[in-house]
Amino acid sequence: MRAVDIIRKKRDGAALSRPELSFLVRGYSAGGIPDYQLASFLMAVFFRGMTDAEMADLTTEMKLSGGVLDLSDVPGPRIDKHSTGGVGDKTSLVVAPAVAAAGITVPMISGRALAHTGGTLDKLESIPGFDVRLSPGRFKEALKAVGAALIGQTDDLVPADRKLYALRDVTATVDSRPLIASSIMSKKLAEGVDGLVLDVKTGSGAFMKQPDEAEALARAMVAIGKACGVKVAALITDMNQPLGVLVGNSLEVIECIEVLKGNGPGDLARLCEELSAHCLLLGEAAEDLAGARTLYREMIASGKALRKFRAMIEWQGGDPGVIDDYRRLPQARFREPLLSPSSGFVRAMDTEEMGIAMCILGAGRETVDSAVNHAVGMHVHKKIGDRVEKGEPLCTLFYDDEARRQAAGERLLRSYNISGEPPDPPTLIKKTIS
Amino acid sequence: MRAVDIIRKKRDGAALSRPELSFLVRGYSAGGIPDYQLASFLMAVFFRGMTDAEMADLTTEMKLSGGVLDLSDVPGPRIDKHSTGGVGDKTSLVVAPAVAAAGITVPMISGRALAHTGGTLDKLESIPGFDVRLSPGRFKEALKAVGAALIGQTDDLVPADRKLYALRDVTATVDSRPLIASSIMSKKLAEGVDGLVLDVKTGSGAFMKQPDEAEALARAMVAIGKACGVKVAALITDMNQPLGVLVGNSLEVIECIEVLKGNGPGDLARLCEELSAHCLLLGEAAEDLAGARTLYREMIASGKALRKFRAMIEWQGGDPGVIDDYRRLPQARFREPLLSPSSGFVRAMDTEEMGIAMCILGAGRETVDSAVNHAVGMHVHKKIGDRVEKGEPLCTLFYDDEARRQAAGERLLRSYNISGEPPDPPTLIKKTIS
Repeated sequence: MRAVDIIRKKRDGAALSRPELSFLVRGYSAGGIPDYQLASFLMAVFFRGMTDAEMADLTTEMKLSGGVLDLSDVPGPRIDKHSTGGVGDKTSLVVAPAVAAAGITVPMISGRALAHTGGTLDKLESIPGFDVRLSPGRFKEALKAVGAALIGQTDDLVPADRKLYALRDVTATVDSRPLIASSIMSKKLAEGVDGLVLDVKTGSGAFMKQPDEAEALARAMVAIGKACGVKVAALITDMNQPLGVLVGNSLEVIECIEVLKGNGPGDLARLCEELSAHCLLLGEAAEDLAGARTLYREMIASGKALRKFRAMIEWQGGDPGVIDDYRRLPQARFREPLLSPSSGFVRAMDTEEMGIAMCILGAGRETVDSAVNHAVGMHVHKKIGDRVEKGEPLCTLFYDDEARRQAAGERLLRSYNISGEPPDPPTLIKKTIS
Repeated sequence: MRAVDIIRKKRDGAALSRPELSFLVRGYSAGGIPDYQLASFLMAVFFRGMTDAEMADLTTEMKLSGGVLDLSDVPGPRIDKHSTGGVGDKTSLVVAPAVAAAGITVPMISGRALAHTGGTLDKLESIPGFDVRLSPGRFKEALKAVGAALIGQTDDLVPADRKLYALRDVTATVDSRPLIASSIMSKKLAEGVDGLVLDVKTGSGAFMKQPDEAEALARAMVAIGKACGVKVAALITDMNQPLGVLVGNSLEVIECIEVLKGNGPGDLARLCEELSAHCLLLGEAAEDLAGARTLYREMIASGKALRKFRAMIEWQGGDPGVIDDYRRLPQARFREPLLSPSSGFVRAMDTEEMGIAMCILGAGRETVDSAVNHAVGMHVHKKIGDRVEKGEPLCTLFYDDEARRQAAGERLLRSYNISGEPPDPPTLIKKTIS
């Protein structure tokens, strides 16, 4: 078998066999197949796509490139939730404890802020002492003791994906559906889960701007899950505006604790309920979706979900006192409202721009190695459909540095589209695919 | 400027600017842009193609990657002929002296046998002593003294093309029209010619099997030439069967000397006349094509073309005695006819297979570093449209090694398609584009 023949086959539109994909992934991981051959292969995949069978084979080969967590001695069922990322997208901090409170194990391996989106690990690290770098052994102990744990990816997990992603990043082959789908699914399958709920974001703040792109990605991932023997449900959800009202690491922790305390409602609480219900259903903790939603509400109303979150923080070395006293979280030195330059209705928000404004403020990462300021962020007062008067605050910025506030504020103002006509509000949950 | 943005731009179907192409070619040549970025770029070009302006810019940037021959002190006009390659394709050895005999300078930089095709340099090297590795200074002296010289590519000429071609070879991006066109044209433009006649082969023995592919390539190269200020004429010619009747290095030298001696006719003599006439027309040695053909015939009939070939051999250190005594050329030890297994008409020939059979015999190269046996080859007795009886010779093999003869013979037999119906004979010159 020769790499050049496999590249040519894909280039000419044929489907590759499992041995061919295995040859490429293993050869690349081991260093026998050079970067330049993978680069031309990835670009051929960008143009030709992949069948469901090819995606499943690629996912499995990537998964097998490193260690696979063996959770067989951790009580099941084991269910995870994964989001494709957005602004203010913080449901993991609610879903994990709420689902675990109902007796389902939630082994969640999360990511960091990248590009304009926030990252679950950065949010958790705003809780003083919280350690997201548990060893596989300690991760399993946490799952046995608490039922849920949230950690970062270990070096051992899916090394082929890390190597491939770095190559895709510099060869303009990131935004290829089969490559995105197999990258996400290989990491999730390596966690050893029985079921997976996917939150596929679409809209101005998502990586997939168009609903049909998001749906196609969701269908690809559901198909991969099926072929690999894992139950998958995918929700297509709105990211045309920040989720909830707080954006920024410690601010998002506060908003999640409020949801766990039952202080909904709002889009965040609604989405947490729906994602948790699907997790509970996959985990067979309820008969149907209505029953699963009821079970979630019980976990919130009874305080069990909040207690589970407290236990998670304690087990991972964090300060559980933040739950009762938000001042124990990092605090920005200044806050200032951003005033509307005109009157009208908020018609649209360029949410990616808002995410970039948060990066400028310091809440996100400009490069992989940038440090994150856990304290800064914003409170969004006006969202799509809201009436706003000239001079009224659109949002309040929490900041430490005046120059950064200035730059972020200008960017935020540009991202608001305000006019006289009230718009149709966006639908939060657009579709469920399973 | 970042390479990844340029790759993405091409991937998304936009045309690149001269500065963008320059950034890529210069960066790659200098080593600042890595192989893997060029590899994904090349695959994007495979799928998206290039505009005429992009091809001209890419050609110019590749040309400028090394030294460009300055022939300004060599009497003009300077005209070259280039063929895309085939089996028995030997016109350079006739065209160069015939055109030079009429007062046009022919600075011809040729290639070696590769894949199933023969190479002009290997043919010339079958003449004892013939040196194709002249320095640029000696090449110019030869052009001034004789009017024509045939040499190989120097290391200094278009290094970016050599580097890119090696990368294309292992990334399945060889057969991309804009990349083929700019590769050929960059080398020809670096010769410092005023005009160029292209012989674009099509058929079973050509790289472009379909006439429309060949025509598209020809049009691309003519467009590049126009944009770069060089007059180009392209002929689309038949390669559905070997050109002429002799294949193999010293055998092809003999057939060319016969054409120069006026012992045509046949497809080889006809094509030499047409290619030479176009060279003479571009060089303004004649008013029109009819006049140019007459001039070519005069060069042959008067013996001037043959005398020019003798002078070329002498100047490049070869033994001119081969012209009068073919036994001074390398001789194969054995010859044996290949007999037809059936009666009928030759309907088709798989000419690529025939070229591979010649490689097996030793006449071509299996890898870039293989040695060539100058003596071996074949005399083709039956070509498309010919009647053949069972047991009659299809061709005669000239060989040194029985095992190779056996393997080549089997391959040749398979490449002949013989049946009861007489076919339409292929048209030798299908189209002229300028």
